[in-house]
Amino acid sequence: MHDPRQSPLSESANDLGASTALFADLYELTMARAYFDLGMNDTSVFSLFIRKLPPTRNFFLAAGLGTLLRDLTEYRFNQRALDYLASLDGKFPDPFLKWLEKVRFNGTVRAVPEGTPIFPMEPILEIEAPIGVGQLIETLVMNRIGLETLLASKAARVVTAAEGRMVADFGTRRAQGTDAALRGARAFWIAGAGGTSNVLAGERYGLPVLGTVAHSFIEAFPSESEAFKAFAEIYPGTTLLIDTYDTLVGVRRLVELIHSENLQIGGVRIDSGDLLELSRATRLTLDEAGLTEVKIFVSGGLCERKLSALLAAGAPIDGFGVGTEMSVSSDAPALDIVYKLTSYANEGRMKMAPGKRTLPGPKQVFRRYRDDVAVGDTLTRADETAEGEPLLAAAMVDGAISPTSQLELNQIRDYAAQQIGRLPTAVRSVEEATPYTVDVSPRLAADEAALEQRITERALVE
Amino acid sequence: MHDPRQSPLSESANDLGASTALFADLYELTMARAYFDLGMNDTSVFSLFIRKLPPTRNFFLAAGLGTLLRDLTEYRFNQRALDYLASLDGKFPDPFLKWLEKVRFNGTVRAVPEGTPIFPMEPILEIEAPIGVGQLIETLVMNRIGLETLLASKAARVVTAAEGRMVADFGTRRAQGTDAALRGARAFWIAGAGGTSNVLAGERYGLPVLGTVAHSFIEAFPSESEAFKAFAEIYPGTTLLIDTYDTLVGVRRLVELIHSENLQIGGVRIDSGDLLELSRATRLTLDEAGLTEVKIFVSGGLCERKLSALLAAGAPIDGFGVGTEMSVSSDAPALDIVYKLTSYANEGRMKMAPGKRTLPGPKQVFRRYRDDVAVGDTLTRADETAEGEPLLAAAMVDGAISPTSQLELNQIRDYAAQQIGRLPTAVRSVEEATPYTVDVSPRLAADEAALEQRITERALVE
Repeated sequence: MHDPRQSPLSESANDLGASTALFADLYELTMARAYFDLGMNDTSVFSLFIRKLPPTRNFFLAAGLGTLLRDLTEYRFNQRALDYLASLDGKFPDPFLKWLEKVRFNGTVRAVPEGTPIFPMEPILEIEAPIGVGQLIETLVMNRIGLETLLASKAARVVTAAEGRMVADFGTRRAQGTDAALRGARAFWIAGAGGTSNVLAGERYGLPVLGTVAHSFIEAFPSESEAFKAFAEIYPGTTLLIDTYDTLVGVRRLVELIHSENLQIGGVRIDSGDLLELSRATRLTLDEAGLTEVKIFVSGGLCERKLSALLAAGAPIDGFGVGTEMSVSSDAPALDIVYKLTSYANEGRMKMAPGKRTLPGPKQVFRRYRDDVAVGDTLTRADETAEGEPLLAAAMVDGAISPTSQLELNQIRDYAAQQIGRLPTAVRSVEEATPYTVDVSPRLAADEAALEQRITERALVE
Repeated sequence: MHDPRQSPLSESANDLGASTALFADLYELTMARAYFDLGMNDTSVFSLFIRKLPPTRNFFLAAGLGTLLRDLTEYRFNQRALDYLASLDGKFPDPFLKWLEKVRFNGTVRAVPEGTPIFPMEPILEIEAPIGVGQLIETLVMNRIGLETLLASKAARVVTAAEGRMVADFGTRRAQGTDAALRGARAFWIAGAGGTSNVLAGERYGLPVLGTVAHSFIEAFPSESEAFKAFAEIYPGTTLLIDTYDTLVGVRRLVELIHSENLQIGGVRIDSGDLLELSRATRLTLDEAGLTEVKIFVSGGLCERKLSALLAAGAPIDGFGVGTEMSVSSDAPALDIVYKLTSYANEGRMKMAPGKRTLPGPKQVFRRYRDDVAVGDTLTRADETAEGEPLLAAAMVDGAISPTSQLELNQIRDYAAQQIGRLPTAVRSVEEATPYTVDVSPRLAADEAALEQRITERALVE
């Protein structure tokens, strides 16, 4: 049995290899050098959160923490990275580079578990580390968590719309790069997809891999029937693609072959045309031939709204291959995700630029339930308690991953299904819902007001 | 001097490492096995093209070929990949895996050079290889060329809108993954961006790296003035961020410091608020203080339309930091890019599924010019000639990269600027233009009609 955790392929699977630390915006390095020169290395808290929901999302599904935690344990600047930085016009003198060489991530990460539904302004994670180190990892943290949360949040909608039918991730070819394709497969699985067409993702994450045949295969044969026969004899029980020339002709040909040649067919796939009409006509043809066991899969430009519409109209579809729309989260291809300093040297920090406010200090989120349905969250200071279940927990302490954060992907997937299931029906649905309530605790609100006043006064006297 | 071509970091820069061949959709492998079992290994031609323009694009800028060609020279299934495939429920028996172990890409690639503006239905590249091999690389080809073409096409618009002002790529944090961030930086450079904030991309591709300071730095100090002073003393001539608390207060503080402390400042950056009003007021404050040399950079949610609007209103802006919108091509986050079998065993192939037609056989594109302005393209058979300059040329022959395809990134960038400059003004602009004319040659149209008839007749008699 293939165990992805043991696989040497997985070992080499970090797309950035030894260069992880250099996956940074330049200003993180220039700031880190300034902190170094100035001897500023007090503890900072940075908070990662999303400022607002896109119109077509009712919640986000947090994902990517496992990926990030591994990066952080391996975080270092190797000699090549240091040589490159030394080549940049004297921006980074030797003493700083010597410090950088010794930088490891020994900080603390508090985070919501992967698979947790979250809302705007709620911390996905908080990093506690010396300010230079907390700053250096900014872009890595944002990109890693941002990507998987973006894609898991989209996929959760698609899975909901599929009403229990299989959703296969067919998005690799149109994903925005190889990393998005691979981590997308991971995020889609967390959100409840049934498998992926991406073989490397299957290997890397231990996911079911799916797929049988493309139009090019059918076209390579003198006739469609010959192609059907050739493929089904090699792969008994396979799914055949029937829309290369004419879907309804294709299914009739297939029925004839099943009877005349005793072909074993598990399903058919329709990849174009009016999927409602074609799936109905195909089902009818199959059923009339006694092939009630043969399943119908559809694909081609699908998204959660099309899935809902097809199922609402009663389309006899057993599974969906969803590609582009899910793989790039096409209706909301980026999140307004930010990574903000909220505390330095035990004092709250915040930005006051218009529309870009940050709540100060380390925080916690409590989720309240009534009859096991979430009814609202309270954003509090980290040292408060409030009604409900706290969402953030230690994921890494002093650079070591917490045992509770070393979850199997299937555990994360089960947890996500359970937590999504506890959301109010409207919030879970693909229709726009009344925003879920997130309150700010009186003490946190007071902290914000006090800090705002301090900053404003300082501005006046300065 | 740092030479990215010599860097060991660049050597390890393939994000997929030894796993490149496994970055495939499962059906490519199941089809390849069927071709192997059936002894079908005649030469195929696959064509990569984009079916249609998104509403907000007048052309695409081809990019990613250099990335892909390197992948193809390194293409192979290593033992780990083979072991994984062997673990998949008997889908891939030993004889096929033994064949797969020997697979190399020894085919031919004809392609438009990177940096060529292209239009719907025009081949970006054509792959000629035994059908199994041509099929195996499908997803890799689509993902690689699709990503960079998507992002270069978006960036070309942003660069046009900037009217010669610097466009800095600030997109890494919100890009869809690390691969998109890194190859995005490459694509943006090809399209004319002036540099990137992504340090690893700078190292990997030899690009200028940009960036100075973030809000968190300002917030870490007891006052904004102290932060300004500390940073500018370490980095004389730097650009300071002035909108952390209040932009106009910030710029006045900065002016005082420049005079009282003799700080050397090259520029200021405004990252929020009304960028037109704030840039005007900032310019006025700076000019009145005799600081006419201090430049103004802006960032924050920018796209080509906002750039155009700012410059049309006369905003005194010297450069733009563009992030999210460019890094995910937010108005068109995926291309309708496809990879289609167009010939097998020297006979044209095409799909007839509704709305998804493919023109048969290997092709060429000729671009006609009048007074050095492109006036239309003709899509022809590969063995035809037509008026104008042919766009596709051999990029790889029998698995070896053609010398003419081993271009420096700067050569590609210059070529792109030149070719975009030869497009009609309306097509180059960010406004929607009348579609550029792409004709199909009479002989290619006749091939299509003949093949369509052959397929239809076959369907009747079958």
